[in-house]
Amino acid sequence: MSPPPFEYRTVEMTDEEFAEEQAVYGGLTEALRRLNEVSLRTTVDAATIVEATKKVEELTDQLSAEMIPANFGVVVTTSGHVRGYGNAVVGARNPIAPPLTIVQDRVKGGASSEFFLNALYEGPPGKVHGGVLALVLDQIFGEAAAAGGTPGMTGTLTLRYRKPTALGACSAAAWVHSTAGIKTVVKGELRDADGEVTVEAEGLFILPRWAREQLAASGETPPQYE
Amino acid sequence: MSPPPFEYRTVEMTDEEFAEEQAVYGGLTEALRRLNEVSLRTTVDAATIVEATKKVEELTDQLSAEMIPANFGVVVTTSGHVRGYGNAVVGARNPIAPPLTIVQDRVKGGASSEFFLNALYEGPPGKVHGGVLALVLDQIFGEAAAAGGTPGMTGTLTLRYRKPTALGACSAAAWVHSTAGIKTVVKGELRDADGEVTVEAEGLFILPRWAREQLAASGETPPQYE
Repeated sequence: MSPPPFEYRTVEMTDEEFAEEQAVYGGLTEALRRLNEVSLRTTVDAATIVEATKKVEELTDQLSAEMIPANFGVVVTTSGHVRGYGNAVVGARNPIAPPLTIVQDRVKGGASSEFFLNALYEGPPGKVHGGVLALVLDQIFGEAAAAGGTPGMTGTLTLRYRKPTALGACSAAAWVHSTAGIKTVVKGELRDADGEVTVEAEGLFILPRWAREQLAASGETPPQYE
Repeated sequence: MSPPPFEYRTVEMTDEEFAEEQAVYGGLTEALRRLNEVSLRTTVDAATIVEATKKVEELTDQLSAEMIPANFGVVVTTSGHVRGYGNAVVGARNPIAPPLTIVQDRVKGGASSEFFLNALYEGPPGKVHGGVLALVLDQIFGEAAAAGGTPGMTGTLTLRYRKPTALGACSAAAWVHSTAGIKTVVKGELRDADGEVTVEAEGLFILPRWAREQLAASGETPPQYE
């Protein structure tokens, strides 16, 4: 993931504590991802659904007994790990994230990912929702900009949909096309399981003033996500 | 929602059966949306999380005892209701959909929605993921094109991010800017809780040849979503 060009919290945490947290809370998230998909596809009878709903509500009561007041944000551990758990595309504790594992290329300035989009990401029948494709590309493009040395937020994003993308295995790649000061132009494409390009995109990423001021005030180089 | 410019299944179902299905299966989906958010924000101890994970896995086993083989698709009932339950933005049985309720204006040719994006839709800390904003706008834009009389699939979509959008209440509106044959240009914008425009967008919607052939072969006007 890209270095966060914005405020983050720091917490005391060893490598071992971080690994356990990933396993335990990440395990719940993985289980919820499967339940989410099955809940859409199930054809069991109404009585079973009503019973399942009660159990889901009980779990919600248990887990909400203690929780952070709102969004997760970005947290950096003292052992140097960055936890962007809430991110809608890559967050390890976000059940709506597919999630994507994105590989950054810091030499050439790019990012890529192979991922699977199941029934939860549907738009037209059997096809990935066009907006979901924009969602994953926006994340990959941001990480490509960061890998190119110029992290930023999306300024503009243009998507050209060449053909529908079938649900299932997909891949995407993005690369820094050009940079000029705080502006980075990223280009990229998304491919379906057959390797055919279904979406082409171009984005302009900018490190906004408030983020530059924040970074300057902190006096430190932002850490890298892991 | 827009009339589906693509294949759909028809099932025997009365108004009463449709209403019960919405209540029962929609109720499970609503409960899962709350559990998903709480699972990200909870700070209960690891033992409680491990126990909750087991219960989620048990529910998954129960619900997967009988299910459709893959994606939900679009189903039209004999009483005239369209069930696009799997849609990633508006699907009544999709736990990852916020979900949006979109109002179409068939007189002026437009669509709008007021919705709430919670911690699950985070990108930068406290802000909505830019790709999530693209996701909701793509859906609203498609419905605006359909309301203008020319349903289609997204051909191109350009997003200009004016400023970060805080998580929470948002609204968006889109309108048909121009039409030419099978092509419709839609423009629109998204606003934060303070009513400030945070994203401006423009999209080109096209009814692709395969969809036109499918519609012509069916010999009927596609039904409207409800």
